[in-house]
Amino acid sequence: MPAHVTENPGDLPAGFRAAGVACGLKPSGGMDLGLMVCSAPECVSAARFTRSGVLAAPVVLTQTRSRLDALRVIVANSGNANAATGNRGFEDAARMQGAASMAGGVREDQVAVASTGVIGVPLDASVAIKGIARARGELREYGHGDFAEAIRTTDKFEKAIEVDVALPSGTVRLTAQAKGAGMISPAFATMLCFVQTDAILSAETADLLLGVCVARSFDRVSVDGQLSTNDTVILQASGASGVAVEPQTVDEAAFGEALDWALRKLALDIVRDGEGSKRIGRIVVSGGDDGMAASVARAIANSPLVKAALHGGDPNWGRIAQAVGAALYDSAPLLLDISIEGVKVCSAGAATRYDVAGLAEAVAGEEVEYVVALPGDGAEAEVFFSDLSHEYVTINADYTT
Amino acid sequence: MPAHVTENPGDLPAGFRAAGVACGLKPSGGMDLGLMVCSAPECVSAARFTRSGVLAAPVVLTQTRSRLDALRVIVANSGNANAATGNRGFEDAARMQGAASMAGGVREDQVAVASTGVIGVPLDASVAIKGIARARGELREYGHGDFAEAIRTTDKFEKAIEVDVALPSGTVRLTAQAKGAGMISPAFATMLCFVQTDAILSAETADLLLGVCVARSFDRVSVDGQLSTNDTVILQASGASGVAVEPQTVDEAAFGEALDWALRKLALDIVRDGEGSKRIGRIVVSGGDDGMAASVARAIANSPLVKAALHGGDPNWGRIAQAVGAALYDSAPLLLDISIEGVKVCSAGAATRYDVAGLAEAVAGEEVEYVVALPGDGAEAEVFFSDLSHEYVTINADYTT
Repeated sequence: MPAHVTENPGDLPAGFRAAGVACGLKPSGGMDLGLMVCSAPECVSAARFTRSGVLAAPVVLTQTRSRLDALRVIVANSGNANAATGNRGFEDAARMQGAASMAGGVREDQVAVASTGVIGVPLDASVAIKGIARARGELREYGHGDFAEAIRTTDKFEKAIEVDVALPSGTVRLTAQAKGAGMISPAFATMLCFVQTDAILSAETADLLLGVCVARSFDRVSVDGQLSTNDTVILQASGASGVAVEPQTVDEAAFGEALDWALRKLALDIVRDGEGSKRIGRIVVSGGDDGMAASVARAIANSPLVKAALHGGDPNWGRIAQAVGAALYDSAPLLLDISIEGVKVCSAGAATRYDVAGLAEAVAGEEVEYVVALPGDGAEAEVFFSDLSHEYVTINADYTT
Repeated sequence: MPAHVTENPGDLPAGFRAAGVACGLKPSGGMDLGLMVCSAPECVSAARFTRSGVLAAPVVLTQTRSRLDALRVIVANSGNANAATGNRGFEDAARMQGAASMAGGVREDQVAVASTGVIGVPLDASVAIKGIARARGELREYGHGDFAEAIRTTDKFEKAIEVDVALPSGTVRLTAQAKGAGMISPAFATMLCFVQTDAILSAETADLLLGVCVARSFDRVSVDGQLSTNDTVILQASGASGVAVEPQTVDEAAFGEALDWALRKLALDIVRDGEGSKRIGRIVVSGGDDGMAASVARAIANSPLVKAALHGGDPNWGRIAQAVGAALYDSAPLLLDISIEGVKVCSAGAATRYDVAGLAEAVAGEEVEYVVALPGDGAEAEVFFSDLSHEYVTINADYTT
C-alpha cells in the first residue's frame, strides 16, 4: 500500500449512499439487488466493459443509452446476467434503468445497469423493480457493505476497499466494491467493480486513470480464461471533498497511484477467491514483442495442466514449456528460459540442474512466481492466475441445476 | 464402420512385427519401450507432427534426420518425453535411433523415434537402448498389443484398430495403435498414433491420405486444449499384400474411407479416455468463415465452464454463448443460434422457450451434441471434446511428484 494511502473503514465518500436488498432474483434468497446513488449533480464518471461478442443487455443498454462520463446511479443485480435474452432482455434492463432513475432522482441517461448470474434466462424485471423501490428506502452513507454483498455470486469473501488518500492538495476518500469469482480472464477480467471517490475529477482524468489502472489490474488476471458477457467497471467522483485532481499534477499522480493500488488489490482478491482457488500464480514473461509476451503469459495462466500443477504444489515446469510452445507454434526452436520462485529450471530451452527438494518446498507456498524469458527483449507481460481445484469442478459442474 | 471394413483381431499386416518391453523408464515398472519393424525394403510411409514451438528431441530428430516417406522402424517410449532436454536430449534420441536401426537391420534414416511422458527430465538413453535390444528378440507378428501398451501413459484403455479392408482390387489389412490421454488439443491432437497396412501405396498417396484423415480426426479433438511437444502420427505401408492403391481410383477412395474411419475412431477413443473423462461433447459450428468457425469450435471445446457443465449433465448453454462471444470479441451483437441435442435453446442471440426437463435428460447421456450457427454461411467446423472432472484435477495435480 502506498504511504499516502490509509485504510479507514467507515462511510462512503461524501456525496454517496448505497443499499443492498434481497428481492428474489437469487434462488437462495440472499441479497441480490444493489443501488449506488451520488447526490452531486456534477458527478463525473468513467467506465470500462467486456469486449465479448455476446454482450449482456445491461452492458448494451449502458453503453448506448447512458452518459458514461456522468453516471450518478448504479443499479446492479446478481442471480441473473440478463445475457442472451434478446429484445426482452434489453427492455428489462431499460425498465431497471427507469426505476433506478426515479429512485435516485436523476435522468435515465445518468443510470448504469449491471447484472451478473446465469446467462440465457429471462430476468424478472418486476421483481428487480420492486427491489429497487425497497433499496431506495435503505440508502445509507454506510450502505456499501450491503451493496457489495448484493452483487456477489460464488464469491466466498468480500472484495472491498475503504481508504483515505492524502494528496498534496488535501485528503480524499476512495471506496470500491468488486465481485468475482468465475468466468474471469484478462481482456479484461470478468467481473463487476464499482469505485467511488469524493475527489474532483474531470471526465478526461477519470477516464484516463481508470483505463490505465484497469489495464494493470483486471486486465492481468485469470481464473479460468473465460471472458464474460457482463464485465463492468465504473468509477464515480462526486467532487464533494472540494479537492481537485488536476491533469499532470502531483495530485493526479498520487491519486492514480492509490487507484492503481486499489484495483490491483481487488484484482488479486478476485484471483485469490477464484472458484476453488488455493494458490495464486504470477507469471512474468519478458522478451519477444508485446503481442507475443501477452499471448504466452495468457497461455500459461489458462493452461489447465499448469493450473493443476500449481494446485498440487508440483514444480512440473515442463507444462510451462508446453504452454509456451503451444502459444508460439511453428516457431521451433524456442530457446526459452524458465525460473520458478527464482530457481532457474530451464535455460535456452533445456533442463538445468537445480535443487529439486528446495523447489518443491518453494512451490508449496500460497503464491508461486514463474518467470519466462523469450529470445529478444523489449516486451513484458504479467498475469496473475488461480489454480485448478476439485472445488472449481464441483462449483461449475452444477451451477444452474 | 464402412461396409467394406471388417473387424478381425489377429496379426499385424504382412511385413510387420512389433514388440513392447519394460526397460525401466516408467517408475511403475510397466511396459515403456515399443519397437515396430517392417521387413519390406520398399516400405512407404507418411508422418505428421505437433506444430508446437517447443519440439521434443525425437520430433526434431525424426523431422531432420529421417526419410519421412520411407520409415521402416519406429522406436517409441513412454515414461519420458525427452522434451526441453537440449543437445543432450537430441543425442539421446540419436542413440535410440542408432540402436533401433541395428535392431531392425535398416539405415538410421529409416527409423522414427517417438517419446511421451514427463517434459524436462533427461532421458536415460542407455536404459532405452538395452530395452531396444530386448525388444528386438521379442518381435512378433502379433506384437502390436505389447507395442500399444508400451506407448501408453495415463490411458485407461487400449486404443487400437485391427481390420481387413475389402478394396475392389483385393483385401488389405489395416492396424493402428494410439495413445492419449492428456495434453490433447486440436492442431492437431496431442498423442502418438502408428498405422500399418500391407497395401501398396505410393509415398504421395500415403501422405495425401494421412493428411486428409488427420485433419478430420486428431485435428478435431480436445481433452484440455493443450498442444503437446511430442505429437507424432506415422502411417507405414509394407506393400506385402500385393494390392496396389493407385491415385484417383475407387481403391484409393475405399482405402481412404477405411483410414478415415480408423483415425476418427481412435481420436474419439482418445477423447473418451481423456483424463477423467465421463462424457463426450461434439460441437459443430456453421456460418462465418473458416477461421471464425474453427476458433469458435475450439473456444467452446476448451472452455472449462462448458466442460464442467458437460461433466455435471448441466444444460447451461449460456456458457456456450459466453465462449462464442469471447472467441469473437469486439463483434457484438452476435445473432447466434444454439441447439443442444437437437433442441433449439437460443435463436438470434436470445433465449427461446424449450422443454427444460427434456433437455436435462438429453444432456445426461454419454455424448452431447452442440450446434452453433453463426451469421453468414459457408464454413463449418467440428470438434470432439471431453468433460472436466475431478479426476482430471487429481491426475494432473500430482503427476511428476
